[in-house]
Amino acid sequence: MGELETLFAPTRVAVVGASNEEGSVGWAVTRNLIESFDGEVLPVNPQQSTVLGLACHDDVAEVTPIDVAIISVPVEIAVQEVREAAEAGVENVVVITAGFSEAGADGASRERELVAVAEEYDLNLVGPNSLGVMSTGVGLNATFAPAGAQPGNVSFMSQSGAFVTAVLDWAADRDLGFKDVVSLGNKAVLDERDFVAEWGEDPETAVILGYLEDVVDGRAFMETVRGVTAETPMVVVKSGRTEAGASAAASHTGAMAGSDEAYAAGFRQSGVLRVETVQELFDAASVLAGQPVPETESVAIVTNAGGPGVMTTDAVGDSTLSLSSFADGTIERLADALPGGANVYNPVDIIGDAPVERFETALEIVLADPNVGMAVVVACPTATLSFEDLADAVIDLQAAAEIPLAAALMGGSSTRSPASKLSEAGIPTYFDPARAVSSLETLATYGRVREREYVEPTTYDVDGERARSVLESAVRRGSSRVGVEAMELLAAYGIPTPAGEVVTDPDAAEAVAADIGGEVVMKIVSPDILHKSDIGGVELGVTPEEVADVYEDLHVRARNYQPDATILGVQVQEQLPLEDGVETIVGMNRDPQFGPVVLFGLGGIFVEVMEDTAVRVAPVSEPEARAMIDEISAAPLLRGARGREPVDVDALVEVVQRLSQLVTDVPAIAELDINPVLATPDGATAVDLRLTLDQEEL
Amino acid sequence: MGELETLFAPTRVAVVGASNEEGSVGWAVTRNLIESFDGEVLPVNPQQSTVLGLACHDDVAEVTPIDVAIISVPVEIAVQEVREAAEAGVENVVVITAGFSEAGADGASRERELVAVAEEYDLNLVGPNSLGVMSTGVGLNATFAPAGAQPGNVSFMSQSGAFVTAVLDWAADRDLGFKDVVSLGNKAVLDERDFVAEWGEDPETAVILGYLEDVVDGRAFMETVRGVTAETPMVVVKSGRTEAGASAAASHTGAMAGSDEAYAAGFRQSGVLRVETVQELFDAASVLAGQPVPETESVAIVTNAGGPGVMTTDAVGDSTLSLSSFADGTIERLADALPGGANVYNPVDIIGDAPVERFETALEIVLADPNVGMAVVVACPTATLSFEDLADAVIDLQAAAEIPLAAALMGGSSTRSPASKLSEAGIPTYFDPARAVSSLETLATYGRVREREYVEPTTYDVDGERARSVLESAVRRGSSRVGVEAMELLAAYGIPTPAGEVVTDPDAAEAVAADIGGEVVMKIVSPDILHKSDIGGVELGVTPEEVADVYEDLHVRARNYQPDATILGVQVQEQLPLEDGVETIVGMNRDPQFGPVVLFGLGGIFVEVMEDTAVRVAPVSEPEARAMIDEISAAPLLRGARGREPVDVDALVEVVQRLSQLVTDVPAIAELDINPVLATPDGATAVDLRLTLDQEEL
Repeated sequence: MGELETLFAPTRVAVVGASNEEGSVGWAVTRNLIESFDGEVLPVNPQQSTVLGLACHDDVAEVTPIDVAIISVPVEIAVQEVREAAEAGVENVVVITAGFSEAGADGASRERELVAVAEEYDLNLVGPNSLGVMSTGVGLNATFAPAGAQPGNVSFMSQSGAFVTAVLDWAADRDLGFKDVVSLGNKAVLDERDFVAEWGEDPETAVILGYLEDVVDGRAFMETVRGVTAETPMVVVKSGRTEAGASAAASHTGAMAGSDEAYAAGFRQSGVLRVETVQELFDAASVLAGQPVPETESVAIVTNAGGPGVMTTDAVGDSTLSLSSFADGTIERLADALPGGANVYNPVDIIGDAPVERFETALEIVLADPNVGMAVVVACPTATLSFEDLADAVIDLQAAAEIPLAAALMGGSSTRSPASKLSEAGIPTYFDPARAVSSLETLATYGRVREREYVEPTTYDVDGERARSVLESAVRRGSSRVGVEAMELLAAYGIPTPAGEVVTDPDAAEAVAADIGGEVVMKIVSPDILHKSDIGGVELGVTPEEVADVYEDLHVRARNYQPDATILGVQVQEQLPLEDGVETIVGMNRDPQFGPVVLFGLGGIFVEVMEDTAVRVAPVSEPEARAMIDEISAAPLLRGARGREPVDVDALVEVVQRLSQLVTDVPAIAELDINPVLATPDGATAVDLRLTLDQEEL
Repeated sequence: MGELETLFAPTRVAVVGASNEEGSVGWAVTRNLIESFDGEVLPVNPQQSTVLGLACHDDVAEVTPIDVAIISVPVEIAVQEVREAAEAGVENVVVITAGFSEAGADGASRERELVAVAEEYDLNLVGPNSLGVMSTGVGLNATFAPAGAQPGNVSFMSQSGAFVTAVLDWAADRDLGFKDVVSLGNKAVLDERDFVAEWGEDPETAVILGYLEDVVDGRAFMETVRGVTAETPMVVVKSGRTEAGASAAASHTGAMAGSDEAYAAGFRQSGVLRVETVQELFDAASVLAGQPVPETESVAIVTNAGGPGVMTTDAVGDSTLSLSSFADGTIERLADALPGGANVYNPVDIIGDAPVERFETALEIVLADPNVGMAVVVACPTATLSFEDLADAVIDLQAAAEIPLAAALMGGSSTRSPASKLSEAGIPTYFDPARAVSSLETLATYGRVREREYVEPTTYDVDGERARSVLESAVRRGSSRVGVEAMELLAAYGIPTPAGEVVTDPDAAEAVAADIGGEVVMKIVSPDILHKSDIGGVELGVTPEEVADVYEDLHVRARNYQPDATILGVQVQEQLPLEDGVETIVGMNRDPQFGPVVLFGLGGIFVEVMEDTAVRVAPVSEPEARAMIDEISAAPLLRGARGREPVDVDALVEVVQRLSQLVTDVPAIAELDINPVLATPDGATAVDLRLTLDQEEL
């Protein structure tokens, strides 16, 4: 168990601000604790001698030792009360009192004081502005929510207290039980990462659920979560996904929004299962809490109704799962056991007059097939079938086969008791077969998370000094925008660049061109001219004889365009065979929560118009870089679609990783686009770049 | 009312095959009718004198006049019984008996006999292999389903009888009522189109629901449905959407699958709202049956909880709806009416201590805002709020404002009675705010269907004779594959083609090239050489002097590649400025259900790799053709992305329509691709084509 063990399994809890005033928060917390807590409840309030029949104390010091202090006092004295509790030796504090950073500038300054106290005494502090915490293991309900939680193996954190109330009320008469529940409040001290770490160590937590509006430190979160999700599934609704939602979230909690792409990448890289709706969150929780992870991702369907069998098959087709192909023996056994007119191929249709025994027989046969990783039982009401008996049979079969099952009992009131029986046994049951299939898909998705091995990002041998000096010379020029003149930065990190140099007179241009040999490309180099091509600042196919003239021409055009432009010179560059390659883009920007985020896509319209990109939080490992290149829709173009020779994908994978290392090493790079990186059958070469510097970080 | 009026509102119904044997189909149908039917039930069975207490008759003739005969007899005598009923003057027959086309070759031949009888007597025949029909208006339950339907304004047809049973059982204790229900069975005579037509005329049907595995005649269906959906919403699950689902459907009903793209296009063009899951089907039915269509697509959110407000905002962001921007007056009124700390912008957060009156006040203010087309009420349980009172208030407000509302009551058992009250008043209510938002989105989607005006496809003045002669000459050559030699076909239909001709000697080639002037393109013309470029069969930029030599070279290369290839000559063509234009593809294939289906996309990888295409069932009207061009992801390229001049989109719109007319007029064209159609700022020109002929249709 982690360092929050005592918070969730205390023996003595003080309620600072306990009250007899019915309906008040101090009253509700005390009442909830008295009703269910296995340990001792110690009301603290100098204005009362008893609260709800318990002796009431003047201050926390009077009742030490205390494992957890719940602070529910007027906001003006809240910080002081926390300090007193800390001085009395309390290590875990839950601040329910509101009026902190969610309430303007005064509140924010009060929150800074609170944090200072917590840091001084090294407190585990939940909140402020929290609904409280629960832990069913010891009957702890230290919240002011009207309903408690049923015991179970799901631990749940929420950045919205109201949502906790809603979920508890909703779960009260369903078969979803909780281990710990925490309302995160303003996350002034403890945040999502602390609870993930705690629950990852908790053998009684089988699934971690979260409702989050932001993540305090994306990279630290990823590191913690990656370790936890290898053993415990974690499902999160991250709201503020859409532009409208993000601005609503900002006005609600003041959460500073990182980009949703960064959240999506960070969550996926660390194994979080992200869902979008409340329904998906709890559907996922139920199945992960109740069913094993499948060994293969193929699904058998057994039904007494053809149409619903087809619908279920469509749902499998829509998912990442596949329909099992039965082994020959399975088909023979089904043919022997089922009446004529039955369909012995998947989806297995045991037809409308099937009694429960026929479901059992068919399921037994398909579950024994090694090609079957999961199964869905789809049943419509008929005169010959008892849903109640079917539920018993399915529960027994699941227990025996240890293969994940889901059920669609397609009826009304007659399904209620059997559905509840199935849920209690951990088998998800819905009217809609598509939801049953989605449940199994969740298991398979988590199965992939659990199986993957974490690969450390490669650390290449690079010339950090040289990279630094390129950036410093840009800064000396007083410019935060850097272009092709900084190609050497890429070379310092081992990213191939064309031969060439920036020169400042025609003779030098001719010399460089002669070194390169053949025709060259010449470009004006100026931090003030962003779109060089548009002003005639780029010449392709320059022959040796033309080099000197072109040098002058480029200067003239730049001057005509902008007389006061700073001109750093002219770049004379090897001319690459653009028509033989595919232009790609490897880019980076820095996210407020997740830091450097790397992007890959094809050049030109593919990124700009088609938005066909792959994104990862850096540092990017080799398999992640490869996955980025595979996942764009245009990937077949790189692999040799339309009769072209495939490009050197390994070289691209390496460029992505080297860029990832560069932007991780150098925080001063705020944004960087290598556009294009020309990918050919023989390699990948950076042709041009644009970079924005954050000079303060250098 | 339509011609099926009597089927759904009979006064005398005969059950042929009525039985006293409990559990038999003949018994169940008779019992269901006796229990609820307002009219007279007349059992027919020569082996019984009474059935379930009613006098039983030897044949239908004995009890005429009869409005509907339900046939539930052994399959061997079913056709004979139908004939007898028809001879006795019965016009409406429901064949419940199974063992027809769903049961092998014998069954199929029996079904053909059944159809012949139906045609001979002009019968309205449902089935065979049907569960039966229901109509709550007259208490008709002529099915063998265990549960009846509650009265309501939704009419429902299903190609799966089991699904009807499931839905009725499920709906029994929910607030979803039905007008008519029909189990389509094998659709030997009456099919989906007949029922759509009937329900379109029925003032008591407010929503048409369908579960379909196929559509018998796609084009006829579209024509009927288009008229109906302008006044009555229609929501369909078409299963067999996915590859796996389609093959499951084929083995279930023998449904011959058209492509899912054709279904999607045909449904959309005729105004069907297609959904994918059972949950979506009934969510859509509920809201369409209970709420008006919105006047604008913008949504106000009123909530007592910040987090759920953000989730709801995300759901709006995910949908096609937008978040209302309130008028200044609205914001002022909210600020006056709500306590400090409330959010008066959308989503309106009236904060956690809100009693029902505050919900009322806030809703009243936002519903009066002309920028608000719809609203979602999102409530979490609190000590100060009664869900029951909130439901009453929302119902009253909705009735007064006549604006669509949906509710998310985020709690458990305390929401049950208020949720049911809201549903009864037609207001969709869910725990998950995303489902509430989806409901409103359904209304808005239907609003767009209802508002659009049907535009007749343009009929261009074309040269049908000339088109026909081009195809006939291809047939005379014995080839079903036609290439660039048939460019004249396009010209005959007014599609611009480059100047040029197919010639058969070098002199003629020179003469044509001289007429064109400047450099030309030359291509070998052979039905045996599909990929001309690959064998060097295309030369670009041929100067006048080179024409004769290139003519010979092309022949040599073709002969080397395939000595016995039929060579029709060499095409000498105007050279178009490919680099100034965008290459597009306009294509067509013929779907078994929907006939000619037209495709538009950009050339090269956009169609082949990115699958970025737009599809419509032909004939395509002007607005449909324009919509096709707008809806592809790469559309910005045509409108002048990345600093290019926009192409002449009107010209492309016309090419799509002219191709649509061609393939509609000429059924012998099985497949046709114009690839590329070069779109430039000045027009659109067909550069090459490939065509497959169905000679039998010519």
